[in-house]
Amino acid sequence: MTDKPLAPRTPLTLLGAGAMGTALARAWLAAGHPVTVWNRTPARAEALAAEGATRVRTAAEAVAANRLVIACLLDDASVGESLDGADLTGRDLVNLTTSTPAQSRARAARAEARGARYLDGGIMAVPPMIGVPDSGGYVFCSGSGALFEEHRDTLTAPTGARYVGADPGFAALHDVALLSAMNGMFAGVAHAFALIRREEIAPKDFAPLLVSWLTAMAPAVHRTAEHLESGDYTSGVVSNLEMQVAGIPTLLRTAEEQGVSTELLRPYLDLMARDLAAGHGDEDGTGVIDLLARTAPAGSAEATSG
Amino acid sequence: MTDKPLAPRTPLTLLGAGAMGTALARAWLAAGHPVTVWNRTPARAEALAAEGATRVRTAAEAVAANRLVIACLLDDASVGESLDGADLTGRDLVNLTTSTPAQSRARAARAEARGARYLDGGIMAVPPMIGVPDSGGYVFCSGSGALFEEHRDTLTAPTGARYVGADPGFAALHDVALLSAMNGMFAGVAHAFALIRREEIAPKDFAPLLVSWLTAMAPAVHRTAEHLESGDYTSGVVSNLEMQVAGIPTLLRTAEEQGVSTELLRPYLDLMARDLAAGHGDEDGTGVIDLLARTAPAGSAEATSG
Ligand SMILES: NC(=O)c1ccc[n+]([C@@H]2O[C@H](COP(=O)([O-])OP(=O)(O)OC[C@H]3O[C@@H](n4cnc5c(N)ncnc54)[C@H](OP(=O)(O)O)[C@@H]3O)[C@@H](O)[C@H]2O)c1
Ligand SMILES: NC(=O)c1ccc[n+]([C@@H]2O[C@H](COP(=O)([O-])OP(=O)(O)OC[C@H]3O[C@@H](n4cnc5c(N)ncnc54)[C@H](OP(=O)(O)O)[C@@H]3O)[C@@H](O)[C@H]2O)c1
Repeated sequence: MTDKPLAPRTPLTLLGAGAMGTALARAWLAAGHPVTVWNRTPARAEALAAEGATRVRTAAEAVAANRLVIACLLDDASVGESLDGADLTGRDLVNLTTSTPAQSRARAARAEARGARYLDGGIMAVPPMIGVPDSGGYVFCSGSGALFEEHRDTLTAPTGARYVGADPGFAALHDVALLSAMNGMFAGVAHAFALIRREEIAPKDFAPLLVSWLTAMAPAVHRTAEHLESGDYTSGVVSNLEMQVAGIPTLLRTAEEQGVSTELLRPYLDLMARDLAAGHGDEDGTGVIDLLARTAPAGSAEATSG
Repeated sequence: MTDKPLAPRTPLTLLGAGAMGTALARAWLAAGHPVTVWNRTPARAEALAAEGATRVRTAAEAVAANRLVIACLLDDASVGESLDGADLTGRDLVNLTTSTPAQSRARAARAEARGARYLDGGIMAVPPMIGVPDSGGYVFCSGSGALFEEHRDTLTAPTGARYVGADPGFAALHDVALLSAMNGMFAGVAHAFALIRREEIAPKDFAPLLVSWLTAMAPAVHRTAEHLESGDYTSGVVSNLEMQVAGIPTLLRTAEEQGVSTELLRPYLDLMARDLAAGHGDEDGTGVIDLLARTAPAGSAEATSG
């Protein structure tokens, strides 16, 4: 179908032809990679077979077919089940399945014990962004730096990639941290829309104000990072905690007036008040991060078996 | 101090020489406006007097001095106290004091009953941004459109202004809605930093990822606005609620693993789960806004006296 001959591309195996796996497979096929695909429910990989992928019947067969093996399955348990009977010796396993950091670390240790190199990935994109140049999507990668370097071109064919460290749990940690922050932002957005919901304010007029405001305020994150690095939480403070806490009654009272539940708003305001009560009125709230830290040591949660 | 003669500028009165009032007064003085200033604690207005403002001893005197009267005081109650003995007949009262919508509406009604035109303002800036061209700061204004138009040049001398409607409560409502959304975003940011806090991840490396991600995700607000306007919450959904809720255990489990409290994260996740349970799995969470709406009618909270 193309006029220009393609340079030979690394052949690869894909475990999982769900919504994301299928989008990835299409991008690799479009880039000229020979793709061997396995899906637990074979019918779901039919379309890919018609588009040029080689379909195999078992995960073990799929793993045997290529050195580079990419898993994009539902969750960590499904990865465990799928790899159970496969020989991973000499394989480069790239696990793009959403996991927790501890799950990814355990998965890496098991894969390495079975003779594979391991790279973990957390996909910061939705299927429609895959294979679209400059979509803004990317995959956080962590684990084997050698694997990442060797397969960088292949891994970045569907979307961007950012290597964030040798710790195989870091990709998942970055992924979850960004998703968690996004949920916080959307919680704030939901509260804001709820406030104007019953008024003669058009959501479409309000939305651009909200987007500009959040976009203008997001860079305050850099100051928070500086505080955490230096341990001095007072540098460059523009709106101190004492003032912010003084403004809390106006926020809560407005919610009351507008008939809006404060359940999304209150936990953060309460933490700011606790941070102020702890004597940090001249800071701007970085101390809230310390208040969130529980006593449990990192990595203490038990890993899944599989 | 200037070579070019300035066009005559509208003289104005400012009630309140706190941090914000002082910044505003300096910007008006710099733009050539004659400024009459009153502050409850006279010493606090001394610097402004030295810079060219006329200081008067009572709020009533200050109100009598100019048609355009701007209040920038601590809260609604302090505005009530300050205006108590003043004759507002024929005055243009611009109240830049942070208030709730109901407080602003009540303040407008009282001012109008006493013969004044009333404009309410909510300042979306901190003092260091005042008087700085293109700082990005601005004031939400609502109430008398005629007053706003007539004094537009004066009102925009210190920072930008956006008129958001004749309802005198709308400036406060927009102000509080944006601040509330920002607190949601910062809650998410605090959780994200807490997750990486004990790991070998430099906050300064993490911060730009977080800022880019939040900035990239913020425009999803436009789709939410479309949903609210059309009543169809399924249009253009890229990541449906069923998938988002399926991802919740990974978010909570990661927090557990990292020893981070879920108090900031959980309320929004719980609402998403409730919205899913209500049968909205094919939407992307706009229904959470409806779940936040309580039964209390808007404007039911009692207004302060004063
Ligand atoms: N879709 C997105 O927007 C998105 C975005 C970022 C990250 N991700 C991540 O990408 C991964 C795949 O997501 P998806 O959207 O492709 O999900 P999906 O459409 O639901 O597909 C799930 C895949 O997992 C397989 N699977 C489930 N349980 C299994 C088991 N026990 N053994 C073997 N295979 C099993 C399914 O096989 P069957 O066909 O046999 O059920 C299917 O191939 C997930 O980790 C997801 O979090 C997705
Ligand atoms: N600073 C900011 O970053 C910022 C940003 C946006 C909006 N705002 C809003 O701007 C307004 C002023 O803030 P600010 O930063 O200037 O506060 P501030 O520095 O604390 O000054 C408060 C002012 O209110 C006066 N005041 C307090 N209680 C009073 C009373 N009962 N009667 C008369 N006057 C009284 C104070 O007079 P005394 O000197 O006699 O105490 C002072 O002039 C507030 O509504 C605030 O929410 C501030």
